[in-house]
Amino acid sequence: MKRLREQLDAIVPLKKTYFDEARKRLDKMAIPKGSLGRLEEFAQRIVAITGKLNTEIKQKTVVVFAGDHGVVEEGVSAFPQEVTKQMVYNFLKGGAGINVLARHVGARVLVVDIGVASDLEPEEGLLLRKVAKGTRNMSKGPAMSREEALNALLMGINIAYDLKAKGVDIIGTGDMGIGNTKPSSAITAVLTKREIEEVTGRGTGINDKMLNNKVKVIKDSIKLNQPDSSDPIDVLAKVGGFEIAGIAGLIIGAAVNRIPLVVDGFISTAAALVAVSLKKVINEYIFAAHKSQEKGHRIILEWLGQEPILDLSLRLGEGTGAALGMGMIEAGVKILSEVSTFDDAGVKESIS
Amino acid sequence: MKRLREQLDAIVPLKKTYFDEARKRLDKMAIPKGSLGRLEEFAQRIVAITGKLNTEIKQKTVVVFAGDHGVVEEGVSAFPQEVTKQMVYNFLKGGAGINVLARHVGARVLVVDIGVASDLEPEEGLLLRKVAKGTRNMSKGPAMSREEALNALLMGINIAYDLKAKGVDIIGTGDMGIGNTKPSSAITAVLTKREIEEVTGRGTGINDKMLNNKVKVIKDSIKLNQPDSSDPIDVLAKVGGFEIAGIAGLIIGAAVNRIPLVVDGFISTAAALVAVSLKKVINEYIFAAHKSQEKGHRIILEWLGQEPILDLSLRLGEGTGAALGMGMIEAGVKILSEVSTFDDAGVKESIS
Repeated sequence: MKRLREQLDAIVPLKKTYFDEARKRLDKMAIPKGSLGRLEEFAQRIVAITGKLNTEIKQKTVVVFAGDHGVVEEGVSAFPQEVTKQMVYNFLKGGAGINVLARHVGARVLVVDIGVASDLEPEEGLLLRKVAKGTRNMSKGPAMSREEALNALLMGINIAYDLKAKGVDIIGTGDMGIGNTKPSSAITAVLTKREIEEVTGRGTGINDKMLNNKVKVIKDSIKLNQPDSSDPIDVLAKVGGFEIAGIAGLIIGAAVNRIPLVVDGFISTAAALVAVSLKKVINEYIFAAHKSQEKGHRIILEWLGQEPILDLSLRLGEGTGAALGMGMIEAGVKILSEVSTFDDAGVKESIS
Repeated sequence: MKRLREQLDAIVPLKKTYFDEARKRLDKMAIPKGSLGRLEEFAQRIVAITGKLNTEIKQKTVVVFAGDHGVVEEGVSAFPQEVTKQMVYNFLKGGAGINVLARHVGARVLVVDIGVASDLEPEEGLLLRKVAKGTRNMSKGPAMSREEALNALLMGINIAYDLKAKGVDIIGTGDMGIGNTKPSSAITAVLTKREIEEVTGRGTGINDKMLNNKVKVIKDSIKLNQPDSSDPIDVLAKVGGFEIAGIAGLIIGAAVNRIPLVVDGFISTAAALVAVSLKKVINEYIFAAHKSQEKGHRIILEWLGQEPILDLSLRLGEGTGAALGMGMIEAGVKILSEVSTFDDAGVKESIS
């Protein structure tokens, strides 16, 4: 635990002076004050996170963590477990939704096997960081041991350090794991203190009967494991998942390294909830990419006080929303660095 | 008038079969059905507009129409009139907000002088299509003659034909014209039958006193000119502007030529309101880029039943929202053309 505590202690609040410096530059630009709305807000926050007024976004990476879930044996998922592995290979072939959208915004996709149920072969673009072959069935006992959860967190933190060393300017999070809306709902219910029904949706597409079963399975899991809401690692271990832990670690590691990070949909945001519950100020380092169709997602966004960048009714995961969100943040940074000032443009300033 | 009538008659409703064909292909893809939400909707509509299932967005152009407004002599704008011309030169130098965001999404910017108050020199990227040196003061008489309004509309229509000939795949609209929220509010009030106060905002940034004056000037203009709400050309001529007419023409011409078109903020959407009031089915050919800060904009979007793509609190105009919106539509089209099918990816389909 010492290593994690040191990481968390290293994360400090963003300095107001950076926001002010960025604001000052924006106000000199040949646009009516504040007229580019949230794009200006993104630029200000990027300056504050990186500590650089002349900031640029060149290297973008979406990290997709893949893990399996023992709870799928309860039969409340729309797809069979082997799809996790099949989708990992699809990511590596470049044919998945995240590949298309990452290419669209000029981002690289990095896939991490942090807990897929079967063995994966080494391949370009795939990091083998398996902590275990999937979680255990949380409706019959804890999904992970505390040590496994911590290991997965540290894997994520280490990846952030590696990306920093490679010069990555912005990170997006992504997930792949059949059944992973269940641990996400469980984490959300416990840490935001909401009813299971309020935070449980249809995932990739299940019917009413399956939804009722899903709610029951999550309720049983929480009742059996009694996760301690004041101890986010306990919650993560007992009713979480490896990819959620990996993403939470990546979020922590990005904040330590002052790399702006864009959080994808429900699963990634549940991981952000764990990270922010461990250290509140992490919330200042992350951007919420979009408002997904999963109702639990909206509840975490409210809890965090994060205003999502996009609202496109996405519910795919994989980091698809994060990729598009990165593109918008990059647009904001370019406004700050590329728009000419009133002076340069020879344009008269406002008379009001 | 004959020429315009012929153009409007050539615009036909989109065929349901194209939406169905696109849906069929999307449903074979290795993503849960409908999980990419509005991106899938964009792709379907692009297929229906272009009539091509294998559609691609390669060439993107944002057309920025610039015009001046006699009503600025009433002193209710945040910037002096000469800024219209100065900003046109800023667009041509590449240092304005629209240049930065158009580059970001890979779009070209084309600037059209359709009614700037002073003479502009020929330059690369600038179309000289001046109908007159600005409108007349609408609070003292009609802004344009009916003939001037029709000429500006036809200029816009012709530009759409030129872009079609050049192989442009998607068009964004943009505006530049100091004072142009006033004619936009006037058009909105008359055509949507709302009170002036409901559709009049602060434009690029005026104080309370100026806002009250602005409302009064618009009220006076409507009272004096008595635009006929059943005759959109009459409304456009009496209380509109050259750039609004040019954009309305571009929208009509894009629909005739089946080029998807992304409408920017308040001024562009007021132009779309004129176009759709002339021919209702044009509404099927356009995308609303974003929800701006101007309250009149939201009222037109509701009236049209258009759900904007983005909500980033932009209020700059120039086509900035349209540029970002185009990027999202392109993402949707790429989903349709690049995501692999369940079969190709070797991924099992849903079991629910």
